[in-house]
Amino acid sequence: MILQMICPDRPGLVSELAGWVAANGGNIRHADHHTDAGAGLFLSRIEWDLDGFGLSRAALPEAAAALEQRLNGQAQLHFSDAMPRVAIFASKQAHCLQDLLWRVQSGELPMQVPLVIANHPDLEPLCAGFGVCFVCVPVAKATKPEAEQRMLELLAENRIELAVLAKYMQVLSGDFLQRFPDVINIHHSFLPAFKGAQPYHRAWERGVKLIGATAHYVTEDLDDGPIIEQTTVPVSHRDDVDDLIRKGRDTERLALARALRMHLHRQVMVYRGRTAVFA
Amino acid sequence: MILQMICPDRPGLVSELAGWVAANGGNIRHADHHTDAGAGLFLSRIEWDLDGFGLSRAALPEAAAALEQRLNGQAQLHFSDAMPRVAIFASKQAHCLQDLLWRVQSGELPMQVPLVIANHPDLEPLCAGFGVCFVCVPVAKATKPEAEQRMLELLAENRIELAVLAKYMQVLSGDFLQRFPDVINIHHSFLPAFKGAQPYHRAWERGVKLIGATAHYVTEDLDDGPIIEQTTVPVSHRDDVDDLIRKGRDTERLALARALRMHLHRQVMVYRGRTAVFA
Amino acid sequence: MILQMICPDRPGLVSELAGWVAANGGNIRHADHHTDAGAGLFLSRIEWDLDGFGLSRAALPEAAAALEQRLNGQAQLHFSDAMPRVAIFASKQAHCLQDLLWRVQSGELPMQVPLVIANHPDLEPLCAGFGVCFVCVPVAKATKPEAEQRMLELLAENRIELAVLAKYMQVLSGDFLQRFPDVINIHHSFLPAFKGAQPYHRAWERGVKLIGATAHYVTEDLDDGPIIEQTTVPVSHRDDVDDLIRKGRDTERLALARALRMHLHRQVMVYRGRTAVFA
Amino acid sequence: MILQMICPDRPGLVSELAGWVAANGGNIRHADHHTDAGAGLFLSRIEWDLDGFGLSRAALPEAAAALEQRLNGQAQLHFSDAMPRVAIFASKQAHCLQDLLWRVQSGELPMQVPLVIANHPDLEPLCAGFGVCFVCVPVAKATKPEAEQRMLELLAENRIELAVLAKYMQVLSGDFLQRFPDVINIHHSFLPAFKGAQPYHRAWERGVKLIGATAHYVTEDLDDGPIIEQTTVPVSHRDDVDDLIRKGRDTERLALARALRMHLHRQVMVYRGRTAVFA
Repeated sequence: MILQMICPDRPGLVSELAGWVAANGGNIRHADHHTDAGAGLFLSRIEWDLDGFGLSRAALPEAAAALEQRLNGQAQLHFSDAMPRVAIFASKQAHCLQDLLWRVQSGELPMQVPLVIANHPDLEPLCAGFGVCFVCVPVAKATKPEAEQRMLELLAENRIELAVLAKYMQVLSGDFLQRFPDVINIHHSFLPAFKGAQPYHRAWERGVKLIGATAHYVTEDLDDGPIIEQTTVPVSHRDDVDDLIRKGRDTERLALARALRMHLHRQVMVYRGRTAVFA
Repeated sequence: MILQMICPDRPGLVSELAGWVAANGGNIRHADHHTDAGAGLFLSRIEWDLDGFGLSRAALPEAAAALEQRLNGQAQLHFSDAMPRVAIFASKQAHCLQDLLWRVQSGELPMQVPLVIANHPDLEPLCAGFGVCFVCVPVAKATKPEAEQRMLELLAENRIELAVLAKYMQVLSGDFLQRFPDVINIHHSFLPAFKGAQPYHRAWERGVKLIGATAHYVTEDLDDGPIIEQTTVPVSHRDDVDDLIRKGRDTERLALARALRMHLHRQVMVYRGRTAVFA
Repeated sequence: MILQMICPDRPGLVSELAGWVAANGGNIRHADHHTDAGAGLFLSRIEWDLDGFGLSRAALPEAAAALEQRLNGQAQLHFSDAMPRVAIFASKQAHCLQDLLWRVQSGELPMQVPLVIANHPDLEPLCAGFGVCFVCVPVAKATKPEAEQRMLELLAENRIELAVLAKYMQVLSGDFLQRFPDVINIHHSFLPAFKGAQPYHRAWERGVKLIGATAHYVTEDLDDGPIIEQTTVPVSHRDDVDDLIRKGRDTERLALARALRMHLHRQVMVYRGRTAVFA
Repeated sequence: MILQMICPDRPGLVSELAGWVAANGGNIRHADHHTDAGAGLFLSRIEWDLDGFGLSRAALPEAAAALEQRLNGQAQLHFSDAMPRVAIFASKQAHCLQDLLWRVQSGELPMQVPLVIANHPDLEPLCAGFGVCFVCVPVAKATKPEAEQRMLELLAENRIELAVLAKYMQVLSGDFLQRFPDVINIHHSFLPAFKGAQPYHRAWERGVKLIGATAHYVTEDLDDGPIIEQTTVPVSHRDDVDDLIRKGRDTERLALARALRMHLHRQVMVYRGRTAVFA
């Protein structure tokens, strides 16, 4: 059982939350807290064994609401054994999609993938090899609203809780994000450097000595969403743009997989455009 | 105020400790816990503001003893504003000593250095430049017991609480360590590789592609003490032994400074030959 | 075209080799050299365009032999467009095998994989998905000589030039290695730490703060072969042995893939139990 | 002896340069080349022993000029035993200056420091401790031209060949740089992220998970000069701006020291706003 709580800071909160878990018979396995003094906010993540916990699943929403009211904050309760339904979005590049599907198959990522959506047909065989349903939804400028509508229907039909953009080379509209806000993306630069298109080309032109990747939550402001994880890899004058792209694939795969794993274990809390990552 | 507690694991401990702080009027700023399931142990580090805390300094030892008895564990209470008296041991190499003295001077390391002990006179001018007392205690095989006796006296006279071996190229005897157990060392390899003498020479011979440094608590078993921090740096066939030594200096400096800083902030807890580092 | 030359050091060698390439109409794209002063050896790797090069493929062996005689050294000539036939050995763990097959498929590794050999049947479906021939050769203590004989026959029948041990949990005998010496292995520790079995378990017990992986050429002395590439990843007290194994998979994959890529690009030269890596 | 040559690419250049060294009796110790296909440029760095080299020091300029004419390029010849005269510029922060002075003193950096220039008086005692001449040249908006004039005179009087900005918090004017172009700077972000002022504050606001430092040659376009070296260090939500500044100090020190060392060993070649670093 995992509780994520965010509320105004005041003395006694750790004691109050830990006391609430203990009073209901929960044995705390991990507890981590953070106070943002500037924002006056207290963030907490507490994980405890479901075994022996006194509240039934049915009673949890009400209990969480009571906590929220008492602390004037926002609480989320998650079951540690949950396997959220996640859709992966892709375009033509295989590496991130392939990596995620393999990690799901090998048990590294506690999630189900009922659906892969792509705007190109290239990756269908890869999905077939993993036994994962693949739907191609082409996107053109003129048809983008219809395409997004179709994707939203697919997400709804498949009861998808989270979308992961695994090198999906399309920008999701603000309208889409309002209707389906839980989206993680991998950007191929150490943001905020090289926001926007073709970061590797621009990194080569600038002559940087390291390239990077950034996994972040998607917001309407392109490449400005809360950052979850960043990785870098050294490059040199010997590397041309193709080498940067090749080296970047490994760092993209790792950054996305790590970010997604932390998200799934509910180690990431978002507030004020930033994340606290209780890893 | 920082509490470090280690005790047998059982439900309710987080709540109990946080409740104890809250009951005495303490506002928790950081709290971190770890359960070692195999060992059946619970480790906790809680930090709170001294402002408004209800127990006087004089009342603390008794309060800690009561906590220990209740939880059948070991508690340590530290004042966040403490500036422990630390002796640095060195030989001929300047880099770690110089780095630590500079960090103390610039306020990075919350400690005082009343004393530097060295078995060679070379580093006296460096210490003079920082206004730090330098005592040369030569060590030869035949005179080692007397030398260690002299050093123990110096530590006692100067009320030293911690000794840091900053490239001190002598082995402290078991007898010394029994009488003065709080010692941190920097070893110039990624332990357990290249235990013992001349790790860079042996690293070169083995043809490794990375070298490292390990900061650890000193125990009687040479290079087997609990590890606090490890760092590595890439090397190549172009690097000869002198290059390894040069590159190693930077990674040694960083590993030792980081380990010492975490120790001074009471972020390190030792149990069963290992450390939990609440960084 | 790539020339690897190793010979006794003397003045004029760079000029002599570059002159030889130029005299035959080759345009040098990369040239890298290393002198091991202690060993008195000169190592050189020169890469040039095949376009316009005056020697025919048929004339190359004789030309190389002439160079060897003149410089009293050992020369190897490789075609940059070669796609060597590589066999991958595995056991039950999929991650390295899967990663290599995917990199071959995506064009990252210039090699063919006509054959995967495993001592367990588990990975057959994975190979089938990539359209790669899989042969299970079980190994038991009593049958090891026959098993190795069978594997040598498979390597010969398939004209295999290099074997890659991708988490193959068996030790190849000295006899095997004498008959098939070109073998690369991935060991799951930063050698020479944790040589031998169960490095992650022993790393956990020792309480290290980083774990690693080492790709190396295989020799009869277990885990003592020339090191090609090493990587590390930080771990903490929060990681149990399973976490170390999970985190290790990523670093193993990367170390093996990088080492193999450099080997295939003929960037690695072995001498005196060490490697020079012209990356 | 080190030759740096940059010229239009054509076949035979490696042979021609190596042949020139050999013809004059030089024994090449290192040779490294790079071809930028897009730019059509060939870059070469060759290092050889001065012992036995047939050209006298006096004859070298003419020899270099002849080479330049023959290859239609730019050649630089450096003596490996040179100890260039370097001025360090600083403001109030000690860490980079202190680190460089210590490395010079310990023989890590082959250079002399006849002069430290600062726009504040704070670091005078530090320089005095190292026996280095310190001149305070305050800079105000109105007096900047005079201040720069004074600094140029100081550089000239002291026959300075290179200026290193070690956290010098003033922008040098284009006029200054035209008259003294050889300047290396350390910027406290992984450029091009957080160009301009207060990068750590902006990094905190953006919520990045790594911070960095960039050592680069200074050009009139602020923070856009050719990058020599970049380093990064992980940060988390626990780090406030002061933590970023503290962690950044270590990565700044390392990036600047490494860049400067490579520059002094003539391993860095600049072309088209980029560097080739033959490390």
